[in-house]
Amino acid sequence: MALRDVLHFPPSDRAFLDPYLPPTSTATATTTTDTTTTTTTTIPRPTRPFTTLTFATSLDSALALAPSTPTPLSGPASKAMTHYLRARHDAILVGVGTALADDPSLNCRLAGAGVQGQPRPVVLDPRARWDVAASRALGLARAGRGRAPWVVVAADVDARQREALEAGGGAYLTLPAAAASAPAAREPAAFAWEDVLALLAARGIASVMVEGGGAVINALLLPQHAPLVDAVVVTIAPTWLGRGGVVVSPQRTVDATGVAVPPARLRRVRWHQLGEDVVLCGTLRGGAD
Amino acid sequence: MALRDVLHFPPSDRAFLDPYLPPTSTATATTTTDTTTTTTTTIPRPTRPFTTLTFATSLDSALALAPSTPTPLSGPASKAMTHYLRARHDAILVGVGTALADDPSLNCRLAGAGVQGQPRPVVLDPRARWDVAASRALGLARAGRGRAPWVVVAADVDARQREALEAGGGAYLTLPAAAASAPAAREPAAFAWEDVLALLAARGIASVMVEGGGAVINALLLPQHAPLVDAVVVTIAPTWLGRGGVVVSPQRTVDATGVAVPPARLRRVRWHQLGEDVVLCGTLRGGAD
Repeated sequence: MALRDVLHFPPSDRAFLDPYLPPTSTATATTTTDTTTTTTTTIPRPTRPFTTLTFATSLDSALALAPSTPTPLSGPASKAMTHYLRARHDAILVGVGTALADDPSLNCRLAGAGVQGQPRPVVLDPRARWDVAASRALGLARAGRGRAPWVVVAADVDARQREALEAGGGAYLTLPAAAASAPAAREPAAFAWEDVLALLAARGIASVMVEGGGAVINALLLPQHAPLVDAVVVTIAPTWLGRGGVVVSPQRTVDATGVAVPPARLRRVRWHQLGEDVVLCGTLRGGAD
Repeated sequence: MALRDVLHFPPSDRAFLDPYLPPTSTATATTTTDTTTTTTTTIPRPTRPFTTLTFATSLDSALALAPSTPTPLSGPASKAMTHYLRARHDAILVGVGTALADDPSLNCRLAGAGVQGQPRPVVLDPRARWDVAASRALGLARAGRGRAPWVVVAADVDARQREALEAGGGAYLTLPAAAASAPAAREPAAFAWEDVLALLAARGIASVMVEGGGAVINALLLPQHAPLVDAVVVTIAPTWLGRGGVVVSPQRTVDATGVAVPPARLRRVRWHQLGEDVVLCGTLRGGAD
């Protein structure tokens, strides 16, 4: 790994994130002995991982100037934070749009992360469109600098793609696509989120960091998905990208009387300046407006 | 004034704003004596006031759920800050859209502001559409709780409106509308900003706080107007209002090769958490990308 690729996120910057991070030792299916009663208790495997939603936007809530236009937004400190967050999760999840547009590395370049500290890339690709065989993420896995992706599909997979992915240590995972009438059933969000998270939990993923892109984020910010999200970490850069960008702004919802209401509000909020950016931490759950 | 209307913004919260505020004693047309040479120097009146752009948005950069839908966004501490900022400026400026939609008070309800601490409301109303005679702002001026508005127009004014406004201590100020080909020449921004600011300076306004609405803010964030803006103060609430709101997001600009570039980036940035909101301070000028 080239030295220039190694990122440092100092402990002094980590403290504000702690209340929003998954537990370092997560309860999965384990057997413990209660010493006071000498009975044996099985702690059930959770039905979903600890789920963190994280992304970086401009002041006008844009992820990028345009689709397929990776747009440098946040500063070096915020970038290092993202890799620290990756180190603290078992998996990173993105939609196929991001995979196709950016060919993202989806690994952790934090100093000292090592191979064991790498998160599992998960790509939601209902129609199996992603050329994983040629992807940067699989290449990094082959080079021992990341884990091989899991690609969640609802369609038949090209045999050459499957061979390449499995040879690299990855896997295709099949899930049924949600009903087309489901809200915000745009492509990468075409699965039911409960199914996706249950699938990851069943494969031992105790924490997942959802990184994008716009369709995935906007879907998870809908009110019906709030119970699935444990923490939200948004980095905002002090820039306006202007009209026409790829925007984080969920669909409106309406209340019982048909009046538009804000789809999401964060609770337990903490803002922390990092370089020229701000990092906003909070949760979508708990408390009513 | 009812006690519930009186706002407090503690000194401990004021310090972070200081570097972004207009000087408390602004040089206007005054005559001073240089004691070392005994010559008399006339400091010219500035051609424009110290100009602060300030507004509050959601995380998805919306000022409101819809036009004419005042949308509570920021918390009590941020609201008190807005009134502290009003106390620190000679004038508050809004576009006619805001005047028509919200019938805003445009006064300062900070404890101890008094009559002398009230800013002058300025409304940009090219077609003289605002019913100032029935407005809350003029009513407050009549009650000694604010100053009477100045309404900047490019059209003939109804005699009854003029009589009411002038009887209350306000004035209609006439400016030519800018060429229709000017960028972002939507209605409230139909004047040339240089003309508006020169007009205010000529009438002794040393500092102006531009508060909205969307068309005014988006116009002032265009690159050609950056030299006119001394400070920007944005409050962001940890809420997403969802698609379809009144959004702060200036028009894109393109560079010499025709590629879209971000229209604005803040310099000298400071983020400060206030309640559950964050306040972002910065300037649009100085330094190149």
